[in-house]
Amino acid sequence: MDYRPYMAHTTEITVRGYHLDLYRHVNNARYLEFLEESRWQNYDKRFETAGLKEKGLAFVIVNINIDYKRPAMLGDVLNIVNTLQRIGNKSVTIRQHMFLKGTDTTVVDAAVTIVLMDMKTGKAVPIEGELLTMMQSSETN
Amino acid sequence: MDYRPYMAHTTEITVRGYHLDLYRHVNNARYLEFLEESRWQNYDKRFETAGLKEKGLAFVIVNINIDYKRPAMLGDVLNIVNTLQRIGNKSVTIRQHMFLKGTDTTVVDAAVTIVLMDMKTGKAVPIEGELLTMMQSSETN
Amino acid sequence: MDYRPYMAHTTEITVRGYHLDLYRHVNNARYLEFLEESRWQNYDKRFETAGLKEKGLAFVIVNINIDYKRPAMLGDVLNIVNTLQRIGNKSVTIRQHMFLKGTDTTVVDAAVTIVLMDMKTGKAVPIEGELLTMMQSSETN
Amino acid sequence: MDYRPYMAHTTEITVRGYHLDLYRHVNNARYLEFLEESRWQNYDKRFETAGLKEKGLAFVIVNINIDYKRPAMLGDVLNIVNTLQRIGNKSVTIRQHMFLKGTDTTVVDAAVTIVLMDMKTGKAVPIEGELLTMMQSSETN
Repeated sequence: MDYRPYMAHTTEITVRGYHLDLYRHVNNARYLEFLEESRWQNYDKRFETAGLKEKGLAFVIVNINIDYKRPAMLGDVLNIVNTLQRIGNKSVTIRQHMFLKGTDTTVVDAAVTIVLMDMKTGKAVPIEGELLTMMQSSETN
Repeated sequence: MDYRPYMAHTTEITVRGYHLDLYRHVNNARYLEFLEESRWQNYDKRFETAGLKEKGLAFVIVNINIDYKRPAMLGDVLNIVNTLQRIGNKSVTIRQHMFLKGTDTTVVDAAVTIVLMDMKTGKAVPIEGELLTMMQSSETN
Repeated sequence: MDYRPYMAHTTEITVRGYHLDLYRHVNNARYLEFLEESRWQNYDKRFETAGLKEKGLAFVIVNINIDYKRPAMLGDVLNIVNTLQRIGNKSVTIRQHMFLKGTDTTVVDAAVTIVLMDMKTGKAVPIEGELLTMMQSSETN
Repeated sequence: MDYRPYMAHTTEITVRGYHLDLYRHVNNARYLEFLEESRWQNYDKRFETAGLKEKGLAFVIVNINIDYKRPAMLGDVLNIVNTLQRIGNKSVTIRQHMFLKGTDTTVVDAAVTIVLMDMKTGKAVPIEGELLTMMQSSETN
């Protein structure tokens, strides 16, 4: 694996006071925003290049399966790394691994399954060709 | 004043664990969501009746001036009452008063100034006629 | 099943403009706040009665598995009903079913697994006795 | 003015899909999170150095007066610069200016007034000595 592109895919978030809830831990819903931020950072440019919007296509989330492993607290620096876990005909699953920066302590481990939706018909369409290559390329670079 | 319609305009929100932040108080940004919820409850039907959307018009916030008077905590039941504080030619200011239910303890006191925007031109247009009457009527009923 | 208590457990949320995102659908993270709101409405009083806080105990989420079935849009009225799906030794899974009010259209279907945590030791403890009875009672009432 | 420290005080935020609402603009409440993020980035280390927490002191917001000048949209890169606008005996006002990066287009202009609170008594105490110097130093560096 090439080290630098991998690092480029790492999202970094510092936990602030407004991320916390009653328990002074990051709230369970807020983690999903952290994961979404990371997906934007990783995939937005590529989807733009693929011309998804112009083709009337968009990726839509159909399932999130998220393990909360260790509560994140004020000042924690979180890193998120995304990998393509599964490629199906009409859906792909992205694994999003969030850990304490510089350690192997997992904070959150999530599998996010998305489908490619034709926004006019509201139906899922196959993920293939250039777009598929583009998504896979993020893993091998 | 007619008692019942006034009560109908009162928004009630119970403070939950996910509303709090590091200090175990409702976070300053979250109050703005509470205020927005109350504006939806008070004005949405009337704006719909006035056909704002069909006319390509929308109310847009240009200023919020908010006093944080007393921190809200877990389990607090908050009431929000809206009154029209000022009517200008192209803007109106809604006063949103949030207090602990059944007391005269103010939690937040906010003045929200909105303009009626022509969504095509992006310019403010006068608030007049039926729409003005409709907004005023909420105060006198 | 007794009809009225069941209805008392139904959380109702109206979708507002601030719940939506780029796609004008409720954002995937916001649904988790809706689910948390429903858990507070259903379980808070009972946990209080059980004296969890005084005993230094709290329920902590270890997994959420959520299916997004149908996007919720502006003005949709959502209902959430919670049922106890699984009771293990040290964890329970609550199923939270969100649907369009008055229909059988599912919006979101989530399984939320929680453990009873000793907040001093940070370790999960068995869910048993009065507390277990109390959680189960919500389903049979 | 020294260029580099000033740049260090600039917070940068890229607008994502989950920041938007019905109008596909950043929601009015979300801007307050952006402003809070910027205050954490600017003041947290200094408050830590000043030992606020150990002294049982914390800064608490008493007023936010925010002008919404130009809606921020998907992909906009926002910069936030903070300056000390007013120093009173028991309160200071921080001006937070948010603009489109690399332009002079203001997005949001906010004045945030904070008091130094003794967390035990719940009363405001004077901002003086080392802490005052520390806050001012951010402006002159």
